[in-house]
Amino acid sequence: MNQPAAVTKFHRHRWEDGTLHSATPDSVVTEEPLEIRLRGQSIAITMRTPGHDDELTAGFLFSENILKQRTDLIEVSHCPDAPTESRGNIINVFISPECHFQHSQLERHFFTSSSCGVCGRSAIEQIQSQHPPLQEDAIKFPATILNKLPDHLRRAQNTFEQTGGVHAAALFDKAGNLIVSREDVGRHNAVDKVLGHAFLNNLSLTNSILMVSGRVSFEINQKALAGRIPLIAAISAPSSLAVQCAIENNQTLVAFLRNNSMNIYAGAQRII
Amino acid sequence: MNQPAAVTKFHRHRWEDGTLHSATPDSVVTEEPLEIRLRGQSIAITMRTPGHDDELTAGFLFSENILKQRTDLIEVSHCPDAPTESRGNIINVFISPECHFQHSQLERHFFTSSSCGVCGRSAIEQIQSQHPPLQEDAIKFPATILNKLPDHLRRAQNTFEQTGGVHAAALFDKAGNLIVSREDVGRHNAVDKVLGHAFLNNLSLTNSILMVSGRVSFEINQKALAGRIPLIAAISAPSSLAVQCAIENNQTLVAFLRNNSMNIYAGAQRII
Repeated sequence: MNQPAAVTKFHRHRWEDGTLHSATPDSVVTEEPLEIRLRGQSIAITMRTPGHDDELTAGFLFSENILKQRTDLIEVSHCPDAPTESRGNIINVFISPECHFQHSQLERHFFTSSSCGVCGRSAIEQIQSQHPPLQEDAIKFPATILNKLPDHLRRAQNTFEQTGGVHAAALFDKAGNLIVSREDVGRHNAVDKVLGHAFLNNLSLTNSILMVSGRVSFEINQKALAGRIPLIAAISAPSSLAVQCAIENNQTLVAFLRNNSMNIYAGAQRII
Repeated sequence: MNQPAAVTKFHRHRWEDGTLHSATPDSVVTEEPLEIRLRGQSIAITMRTPGHDDELTAGFLFSENILKQRTDLIEVSHCPDAPTESRGNIINVFISPECHFQHSQLERHFFTSSSCGVCGRSAIEQIQSQHPPLQEDAIKFPATILNKLPDHLRRAQNTFEQTGGVHAAALFDKAGNLIVSREDVGRHNAVDKVLGHAFLNNLSLTNSILMVSGRVSFEINQKALAGRIPLIAAISAPSSLAVQCAIENNQTLVAFLRNNSMNIYAGAQRII
């Protein structure tokens, strides 16, 4: 099975101490969807780092109480006849006939695919959103302003100071002024909160920056795209799918943003 | 509306430089389920930190492409007649009659509750797993062994060294020997992988330690409970629901584990 690797290489620009260095390859953790099929039926898709997919699948079904003992599991293996673009991203599970499985058991966590008509589509298509790519624009963000954002965000993080246990997301205008910041145990929730703030107040975000306190995954990109936000900035690392989506959708993606440096993974034309 | 606070206080023991200090109150970020009801139908439950629930809901529906413009949203407000234990954790959304919503649109992300018979139950009951609490046991873990685990885990984290972008989970035996470690962009996936490894190899985990490189949320606890693992150790912070579940299920929960210190939030009787 030709499986995706756990690490993906991308070219990215590095900005450091006032200098933009030319693009060099960088290692990014791979994020790809895994579709789990139980008794031939698609039951869950999870975004994961490829590798040990059999363990991931067994562990998921075990903690969901579908597998109870080793003998419940007959086989777990990658789908040999998946379309090329899904190769290695579909896994088939066969469980003992004595093992009773109800589809409704899974409704607690992962989304369940009710349609069985998806077999011909790649899992990645299925999870992509309906939002079109950003248009070309002339918006520019000075790197020196971006470098100040981590401090701004930290000052706005009340709950983090108390607990050390939350993600923060914030919107800034292109001059680096804070529009809103929110915190949550869930990284996606923090982003939903700032997007919801803009939505409820009818704010246009086409000139603004979405900043997150942690890493950037695929779903953060999709949410920024929904808000037509041109620049996503993260304190920590991006996933491979975040980089890939940013490239495809004409988003600017900045990560490892610190007080005097940053990596630019996509849309470097917007950084001056 | 009497909403849960964003921060919850718990008593925890602190171990530092060989001394166990008596229990003192500590602030932990609150993690509670929010049930979103659209046109009276339960469509999603997300674990979130209470606060700005209207924004979270609007942002979620906006990034899911259900809300497209401000006028699509008529009202978003907490359910006034929810049962006491769910008070503040159920939110009602009413959208414009012109707004077309299909239940299947939501199948991508959150789990969808197909039954409408859940209204009488609290959302928290609904997301809890079927695994019974741990029994009383005589297992003891020396604190001096736990303090060595962060270094062990770091040495096993190959992808993190290259990318800075992954979570790790590991199983250790009670003498502190590594059983297995796995990495993933998703924290739950890393835990599913090590649990799946144990499941596939028929390993009993009743004397072992589940260690995670980041924070501990409710779902990590539930997965440890599925594996009957008595001790969960985290490098970073726990959520309120993780602490609450550990207490209720007789699990030992250690967080902020460093080379010479740790906080013990539940099950301190197992630490010597």
